[in-house]
Amino acid sequence: MKIVINRDQLMQSIQNVMRAISPKTTIPILSGMKLEANEEEVKLTGSDSDITIESIIPKEEDGIVHIHEVIPGKVVVQAKFLPDIIKKLPEDLVEIEADGELNITIRSGKAEFTLNGQDPEEYPQLPVLQTENSFQIQTDLLKTLIRQTNFAVSTSETRPILTGVHFKLENDQLELVATDSHRLASRKIAMNEETDSLSFKNIVIPGKSLGELNKILDDSQDSIQISVSDNQILFRTKHLFFLSRLLDGNYPETSRLIPEQSKTEVKVDSKELMQTIDRASLLAKDNRNNIVKLETKENNAIEISSNSPEIGTAEEVLNTNEISGEELKISFNAKYMIDALRAIDAEEIKIQFTGAMRPFIIEPLDEGEQILQLITPVRTY
Amino acid sequence: MKIVINRDQLMQSIQNVMRAISPKTTIPILSGMKLEANEEEVKLTGSDSDITIESIIPKEEDGIVHIHEVIPGKVVVQAKFLPDIIKKLPEDLVEIEADGELNITIRSGKAEFTLNGQDPEEYPQLPVLQTENSFQIQTDLLKTLIRQTNFAVSTSETRPILTGVHFKLENDQLELVATDSHRLASRKIAMNEETDSLSFKNIVIPGKSLGELNKILDDSQDSIQISVSDNQILFRTKHLFFLSRLLDGNYPETSRLIPEQSKTEVKVDSKELMQTIDRASLLAKDNRNNIVKLETKENNAIEISSNSPEIGTAEEVLNTNEISGEELKISFNAKYMIDALRAIDAEEIKIQFTGAMRPFIIEPLDEGEQILQLITPVRTY
Repeated sequence: MKIVINRDQLMQSIQNVMRAISPKTTIPILSGMKLEANEEEVKLTGSDSDITIESIIPKEEDGIVHIHEVIPGKVVVQAKFLPDIIKKLPEDLVEIEADGELNITIRSGKAEFTLNGQDPEEYPQLPVLQTENSFQIQTDLLKTLIRQTNFAVSTSETRPILTGVHFKLENDQLELVATDSHRLASRKIAMNEETDSLSFKNIVIPGKSLGELNKILDDSQDSIQISVSDNQILFRTKHLFFLSRLLDGNYPETSRLIPEQSKTEVKVDSKELMQTIDRASLLAKDNRNNIVKLETKENNAIEISSNSPEIGTAEEVLNTNEISGEELKISFNAKYMIDALRAIDAEEIKIQFTGAMRPFIIEPLDEGEQILQLITPVRTY
Repeated sequence: MKIVINRDQLMQSIQNVMRAISPKTTIPILSGMKLEANEEEVKLTGSDSDITIESIIPKEEDGIVHIHEVIPGKVVVQAKFLPDIIKKLPEDLVEIEADGELNITIRSGKAEFTLNGQDPEEYPQLPVLQTENSFQIQTDLLKTLIRQTNFAVSTSETRPILTGVHFKLENDQLELVATDSHRLASRKIAMNEETDSLSFKNIVIPGKSLGELNKILDDSQDSIQISVSDNQILFRTKHLFFLSRLLDGNYPETSRLIPEQSKTEVKVDSKELMQTIDRASLLAKDNRNNIVKLETKENNAIEISSNSPEIGTAEEVLNTNEISGEELKISFNAKYMIDALRAIDAEEIKIQFTGAMRPFIIEPLDEGEQILQLITPVRTY
C-alpha cells in the first residue's frame, strides 16, 4: 500500500477515527487504526468494539484533489502516536507506505517515521448492519437533540439501561429521553413524512457513544442517515460511518414520572435564574450534593439561598415575571437546575412545582420547542 | 470594617494574592486572606510562609476612584471561595463589611454572601525586611531573565539548593544561574551605575517563588525594586509587595562546568532545529528519558533520530548553516534541548560540542544577549 495524501484532510479523518480507539483496549489489534486504500478513496477505521468509526477520504471532491498517488492495499498502524506525528509533519503532503513486513513508513519533507504495523487480516470484521429501518434528520438538529438530553444519562452502572438515551419513533414523532432517576430530560420533534412506515420503541444508545458522535459531527444542515437494528445503530454522513452498539434491556416507562398538575408555577428569566443559582451554589459546592433552596416571596419574588456551615451563607432575591399558586420552599441540586436551563436555552422559562417533595418540571415559556426537564427535589425542610 | 470597591480592581488584587495562599496549609489562619482598609487604601495579604504577597488598591488613582466608601478596619476572610464569589457578582460595585463577630458580608446588587472570618490579630506578623541592598530593574526584563533560567532548576529535593535560581550581582553585572545537574541555564545583564556600591553572591531564590512572581508581573517597562537580606528577598512595584524566603546553603560554583574549548561547532536555524527535534522526540516520549540522537553528516547536514523498539523509528536530515571541527554522534534529552532553544529565542544559534560524553553549550549566534544553555549528553553509543 502507498498513498500520497493532503495532511490536513488526513489529520481531520484521523482525529475523528481516534474517538473510537481506546488506549486501554485489551484487544491489541484494536489499539491500531486500519488504513485501506483503493483507486477511489482511503478509508480509516477505528473501534473499541462498542463504537466503530469509519472515515472516508475521497480521491477528489469538488475539484480538489485529496489523494495524489495511490497503490491499493491495507494495513493496521499503531494509533497512539499517529495524530501527533501527522500534526507535526513539516509539509502539506504526506506519503504513507507499507512494505510486505508490515513496516509503515510516513514521509513528509525530510522527516521519516517508520512505525510497526499489524496484520490487517487480523482486524475484526465489522458487523454489517442489515436493516430497512432508516430515516434522515438534519445534522445540526441531531446535535441539538443530543445536547438537550445526553447530559442527564446515569453515570452509574447500577442500572446500565439508564446510561443510555432512549430513542422512540412513533406516529411521525421522534422522542429522546434520558434520566439518571434524579432528573430527566426529554425532547420531541415532529418528523417528516418519510418515516411514515417506521416506528421503534426500545432503542437505547449509550450516552458515551452519543457524546463522541456529537464531537465529530459539524453543525451542518446536511442530512445524516440513521439506521437501527436490534442491537446496533448506524449514523451515516457523506464521509463518515458511526456505528454503536445499543444497550440491552427495556427502558423504563418514563411518562408517568411527569406530574400532570402543578400547585405552584413560576415564570422567570432563564439567564437571571441561572446566574443567581450559579452564585448561590458557590458555597454549596462544599457539600456533597450542591444543594440550594428556593423560596417564594411576596411581590413575585423568589429567594435563592445556600449554606455551608464551615464557610458561610449565600442568598439572593430574584424578581420573577409571575408566580401563581401556593407558597413554596424547596431544595434541589444546583447543577441539575443549571444543566436543565442550559439545555432548554430559552429566554423565559416556566417551572411547575407540585409541592416540596415532588419532582418539578421546567419548560420554555414559548411552547414552540417540545422540551421538558424534570428534577427531583432534595429533602431539607 | 466596611468598603465599597470596584469589582474588577478587587478581582485583580485577589487573584495576585491567591498565588501565595496554599489550600494545603497546616496553619489555619494562612488559609485566609487578610483585608485591611484605611482612608487611603485597601491592602490584601496572603502567605504560605515561604511566599508573602501584598496587593494594594489605592482609593483613587489617575483620576479613577477605586474605593467609594470606607470604614477603616481589618479582617481575615476564608480565601477558598473568594475569587469565585467576586468574579460572579452581578454588579460592578462590591460592598464588604465585617461585624464585631468576624462575620464578613459581601454584597453586590441583590446578592449577599456571609462568610465566616478569622481574627486578624492572629494573622502572623510579616517580617520587615531591613536592608540597604536594593536595586531596580525593568519589569519586563526581569520576567525575561526568569523565563530564561527558572525552567532549569531541579525539581528534586535531593539537593535543595538546586531547586532555586542563583542571583549574583558583581561589578555592575547581574547573573542568574539555574541547574538541575543535568543541564544549566545562565543569563547575564549589565546593570546601570546605581548598583555601584552593591554586590551579593549567594542569593538563591526558590524556583517556585520566581514562577509565581512571573505570573503576577505584567510585561511592563516600569521599574521593579529588588531588596535582599540574608534570608529574604523583596520584589516591590507600585502596588505589590512580593516577599520570598531564600534557600539556605552555598550554591555550587558553576563556571567550571562550562567547557572552554570545543571540538565540533554547529550553526543552525533555531526554529528548524526545534521542530525537527520535536518531531523526532514524538516516539522517544515512550522512553523514560526522551532521548534523541544527533549525528553530523556530509555537506553541513545533521541527522536527528530516535527509536522506540515497540513503536518504531523517526529520522530527519536537517541542513545547518555551518559545521566545523570533528565528526560527532551524540544523544541527549529532547526536552532539555527544546527548553534551551525556547529560552534563547534567537533566529540562529551555535552549539559547541566537546565530544560525545562531554556537556555541550548552546548560545545565540548573535552575541548581543549574554545567555548560555548547557546540556549533559546521555550515553547511548
